[in-house]
Amino acid sequence: MHSPSELLKRIEKAISEIQYPVYPASLYEPISYIMSLGGKRIRPTMLLMAVDLFEGDLAAGIPAALAIETFHNFTLVHDDIMDNAPLRRGRETVHEKWGTNTAILSGDVMMVEANKHLTNVHVSVLKPALDTFNLTAQGVCEGQQLDMEFENRDDVTIAEYIDMIRLKTAVLLGGAMKLGAIVANASEEQADLVYQFGENLGIAFQLQDDILDVYGDPVKFGKQVGGDIISDKKTFLRLKLHELADRNDILLLHDNSQYSDNAEKVKVITGLYNRYGIRSAASEVMKHYLDLAFQALEKITTPAERKEELIIIANSLMNREN
Amino acid sequence: MHSPSELLKRIEKAISEIQYPVYPASLYEPISYIMSLGGKRIRPTMLLMAVDLFEGDLAAGIPAALAIETFHNFTLVHDDIMDNAPLRRGRETVHEKWGTNTAILSGDVMMVEANKHLTNVHVSVLKPALDTFNLTAQGVCEGQQLDMEFENRDDVTIAEYIDMIRLKTAVLLGGAMKLGAIVANASEEQADLVYQFGENLGIAFQLQDDILDVYGDPVKFGKQVGGDIISDKKTFLRLKLHELADRNDILLLHDNSQYSDNAEKVKVITGLYNRYGIRSAASEVMKHYLDLAFQALEKITTPAERKEELIIIANSLMNREN
Repeated sequence: MHSPSELLKRIEKAISEIQYPVYPASLYEPISYIMSLGGKRIRPTMLLMAVDLFEGDLAAGIPAALAIETFHNFTLVHDDIMDNAPLRRGRETVHEKWGTNTAILSGDVMMVEANKHLTNVHVSVLKPALDTFNLTAQGVCEGQQLDMEFENRDDVTIAEYIDMIRLKTAVLLGGAMKLGAIVANASEEQADLVYQFGENLGIAFQLQDDILDVYGDPVKFGKQVGGDIISDKKTFLRLKLHELADRNDILLLHDNSQYSDNAEKVKVITGLYNRYGIRSAASEVMKHYLDLAFQALEKITTPAERKEELIIIANSLMNREN
Repeated sequence: MHSPSELLKRIEKAISEIQYPVYPASLYEPISYIMSLGGKRIRPTMLLMAVDLFEGDLAAGIPAALAIETFHNFTLVHDDIMDNAPLRRGRETVHEKWGTNTAILSGDVMMVEANKHLTNVHVSVLKPALDTFNLTAQGVCEGQQLDMEFENRDDVTIAEYIDMIRLKTAVLLGGAMKLGAIVANASEEQADLVYQFGENLGIAFQLQDDILDVYGDPVKFGKQVGGDIISDKKTFLRLKLHELADRNDILLLHDNSQYSDNAEKVKVITGLYNRYGIRSAASEVMKHYLDLAFQALEKITTPAERKEELIIIANSLMNREN
């Protein structure tokens, strides 16, 4: 068994060794740029953890890990265009730095690069690896589309929201882990179980994100606490409040003119969350998905000690403060 | 042997039978829309012609043909965003109809759909098919990037221009035909030869496009004759004129204020093309690439009668009037 930090080192090394073409420079520079901005590399790390879980060869998992990380970064480049985001990991976004057209096209070629990485898995698992990868990629695009649509809808249900974060965030974690299982020659049934572990963990992770945005420690959170409240983002907390609150309290959600500033708005709406017990409602649902993840993990037939690192990382993700 | 029109029928049937997911509708409707706008389907048709050339099973070529046609339409969706184009095949472009964000994302998911089609080729040829497809896709992105860059450069050489149209247009025709050869279990050498046929034919085709824009019959051309001149597009003709013309004549190219209207501009610059023999210079280069295409075809070791349809279609493409 390898620790996540050992696996991360292997991933960082492999990323640093990728050789992109040099012409046209303006197409490939943005790729090196976004790939070098770092991030937690959580998806490729958990992919390699799945390889490890099934006693596979880590080196054989690297092409799939690079495919997943490249694909993830591709989605960041295109999402940042759609969201008009100026910054990514504290640096200029690709479209800010090189213009929207180049960002579209560099993103496109990153998708090709991701596919190229994937073709380097062992040919005996190429077809199932591609099927999983394509299904994953499709889900992520569907999730992003739903996320954009929800911005303009006032009737989003909690079930729709959970399905959206499942597609936008969790499918990629599940898909990454399933790829790890496939590369390690796990059976289809076992690969599906590790997919379920990853997907449910991903949903729990995103719900935790929604909670931290309101209840995170301002010192440790790293972002502005209440950012989702200020931007009226339809998070689980907001949708749940909508479901439970009476008519007068719902008006507090919809009329920004009544707040003298953002701090007041955060204070008032957090007050509503507290009054209606939204935090514990969210925690409960988060724990439900975490339970589903652990139930899937339990069904996996590898020795218990091979699951230890996954249990540790799952719990640490749930107890994180940023 | 099958005629191109028989092959086209099979392709249209296969396209009409594609089932896209229905949710989220706004992500998949643009795909059905752009795929149903038609077009000549020249790439998938020539892919199947390559299958036929090597006596392969046409049905086995359909997944690759759908992959190529879907990829091609994906590039149209994203290129139309970058070019700010309002119309495609006489209808609203995807970004005009559904907005830029949806067009980016629908395009992304089309790339995934293309890859999904490709995974349905026989598993014994999956790896070489993917390698060819990815190399092709990458080339097309590089070509589009160069095309955009050339708009802002005044020192584009003819060699750079030929390389740009090779990447942007010809690589896809070559790649399509190579995929046909791979699906038909042709040897690597034979597959490379049919690639060369397609690529060189593609370059010749694009040069013919440049010529037709100026010298096409206004009745048969279907577009405004002189469109490239009006928009100052750096075509082969313009770059060649730049190479040959004296200083005074070059000034006629760069100062639009001297023309009372577009008709005068087209007339004056066409006059320069005539005076410097640009049409025959372009025809010569076009014929050079057509020769290279036929030389590659000649080296292919299938019986001569299997090449007949390809020779007919190549000549008809070169003698077209629109």
